[in-house]
Amino acid sequence: MTKLVINKLCIIGVGLIGGSLARALRKAGVVKEVIGAGRDEAHLKRANELGVIDTFNTNLADAVIGADVIVLAVPLGAMQRVMTQIKGYLSDDAVLTDVGSAKTSVINDAQTVFGHLPVNFVPGHPIAGTEQNGVEASFAELYENRRVIVTPHAQSNKTAINKVKAMWQACGADVVEMNPSHHDEILAATSHLPHMLAYTLVDVLARMDDSQEIFDFAAGGFRDFTRIASSDPNMWHDICLANHDALVPVLEKFSDELRLLADAVRKGDSDFIKEIFTRAKQARDKFCND
Amino acid sequence: MTKLVINKLCIIGVGLIGGSLARALRKAGVVKEVIGAGRDEAHLKRANELGVIDTFNTNLADAVIGADVIVLAVPLGAMQRVMTQIKGYLSDDAVLTDVGSAKTSVINDAQTVFGHLPVNFVPGHPIAGTEQNGVEASFAELYENRRVIVTPHAQSNKTAINKVKAMWQACGADVVEMNPSHHDEILAATSHLPHMLAYTLVDVLARMDDSQEIFDFAAGGFRDFTRIASSDPNMWHDICLANHDALVPVLEKFSDELRLLADAVRKGDSDFIKEIFTRAKQARDKFCND
Repeated sequence: MTKLVINKLCIIGVGLIGGSLARALRKAGVVKEVIGAGRDEAHLKRANELGVIDTFNTNLADAVIGADVIVLAVPLGAMQRVMTQIKGYLSDDAVLTDVGSAKTSVINDAQTVFGHLPVNFVPGHPIAGTEQNGVEASFAELYENRRVIVTPHAQSNKTAINKVKAMWQACGADVVEMNPSHHDEILAATSHLPHMLAYTLVDVLARMDDSQEIFDFAAGGFRDFTRIASSDPNMWHDICLANHDALVPVLEKFSDELRLLADAVRKGDSDFIKEIFTRAKQARDKFCND
Repeated sequence: MTKLVINKLCIIGVGLIGGSLARALRKAGVVKEVIGAGRDEAHLKRANELGVIDTFNTNLADAVIGADVIVLAVPLGAMQRVMTQIKGYLSDDAVLTDVGSAKTSVINDAQTVFGHLPVNFVPGHPIAGTEQNGVEASFAELYENRRVIVTPHAQSNKTAINKVKAMWQACGADVVEMNPSHHDEILAATSHLPHMLAYTLVDVLARMDDSQEIFDFAAGGFRDFTRIASSDPNMWHDICLANHDALVPVLEKFSDELRLLADAVRKGDSDFIKEIFTRAKQARDKFCND
C-alpha cells in the first residue's frame, strides 16, 4: 500500500467539518497545500489567518483547478449549486468526495449535474461534530476514533474509494463502507429522528404560556435530552429534506408507537408501559455505558 | 427564625434520594438520629453499614414512632401502601413529607388513606437525581443548588411547611413553593414527556431488524438524547400513571406537532420546518448555555 499524499486539497465550505479535516490532514503530514473555497471571503480570510488553509478563492471553478482531492463540505441544500460551478474544471484523476449527512440525495445531485455518476466521485459521511459551527470551532482531533461512513455509488472507481478511505484513516477515523440508501436509513433512525424530536419538544414547550417557568424547572436530564436542539436550523432543514425518503417512515413509526404509549398511559395499562420501558433500558444499557 | 433541629428523622425507602437526604442533613448537623425503614432488610443493613442511617426497621409502624420528621422516599406506586402501614402511629406534631415526582396523586393517596388531609403533611419534590439507583449511589451533595418544589395542600399547616422548607434548605437546595397541580403540569412537560420520548425512541430502534448496527453508528448526540432511557422502568411506570392527567395532554400535543412536522418534511415545506427549528434553537440557547 502506497502512503497517501495529497498534493493540493480543495475544501469547499471551510466550517467545523471542512476546517477540522484540513487541520487533521495537515497534522498527519499527508497534504502539501490546502485551498479553501466558498462564497464568503471574510470567512475564508479568517480560516487562512487561523492557519487552516494556505490560500483561498471565492471562485469555485478556479479553486478546484489542479486539485487532486476536492471535498464538498457545504450544507446538503448547496451541493447541486456547488457541483454545477465546478463541473468541467476538475482534473481527470481528481477525487471528489463530500461530507453530507444524507447520501442518496448527494448521489442524485451528482447524476443531475454531471449527467452521469463520475467514477472518481466517492460520497462520505464523518459521524462527528458538535453543536458548534464555523471554522473557529474546528480542531485536528475531531475525527479521532470516530466513524466515517464511505458510500461509493455503483460506478465509483476502486482507486478513488481507497484514496477517500485513506484520507479519513489519516485523520484517525474508523472507516466503514456502506450502501448509500442503507446509510440513509441508519442515520434517519439514530440521528435525524432524534433531532426532529428534540426540536419539536423544545418548540412545543417554548410556545406554552408558562414557557419561562417550564424551562426554569428543567433539570439535567432535560439539558442532555435537548442539547441537539441547539444545532444549526438551516443545516438540519437541509438534512430533513435531503433524507426525507428514509426519515418520513421512521417519523411515522415513532408517532404510531408514541400514540400506543399515550393510550396505555390513559388506560393505565401497566404491562404495556413496563415492557417498553424495560426493553428500552436494557437496549440503552447494552449499547452505551454512560 | 429558629434553627432547624430534627431529633429523629425516619426515611422510608433508603435509596438514592432518601439516602442522599439523610447524608446531607447529617453533614449539615441538623439531625440527631436517622432511622431507615423499608421492606428489604439486607438493603437497610447496607445503608446502615454505609453510615447513611443509625438504625433500621422493616416494620414501618414501629419505625415512625417518636419520629419528628418522616420522609416517604418510595416509588409513587407504593405511597398508599406505606401510608396505610404508618397510619395511627405518627406523633401528633410529626411532619410528614414525600419526594414523589407527581404531587396530586400523593395528595389523593393521603386523602384516601387518612380520610382527610393531615395538617402536618407537606408534599415535596427535589428536582435532582441521576440514572443511578440505590443507597450506594447516594451522596450528601446531591441537592446543593438544585431546585426543590414544596407543594402544600390547602390544609397544610404553616409550621410544617416551614420545617420541610428548612430541611431542604439545610441540604443546600433552592426551595420554591408551588400549587400541586401546577407542579404536575410543569414536570409533565420538562421531565415526564422527555422520558416517554427517550424510552419510545430506544424501544423503536431496538425492535428494528438491524438494531445492533443502528446502535453501532449512534454518535454522541444520541447518547445524550437517550441517557434518560436508562432510568428505572418501574419508577417511571409509576410516575406515568400517577401523573397521567397532566402527562396525556402534553403527549397528545407533542404527537400532533410531530405529525405536522412529518407532513412538512413529506411535502418539503421549508418555511414550516425552518420556523420550528429556529424557534427551538433560540429557546434552547436562551435557557441553557451548554
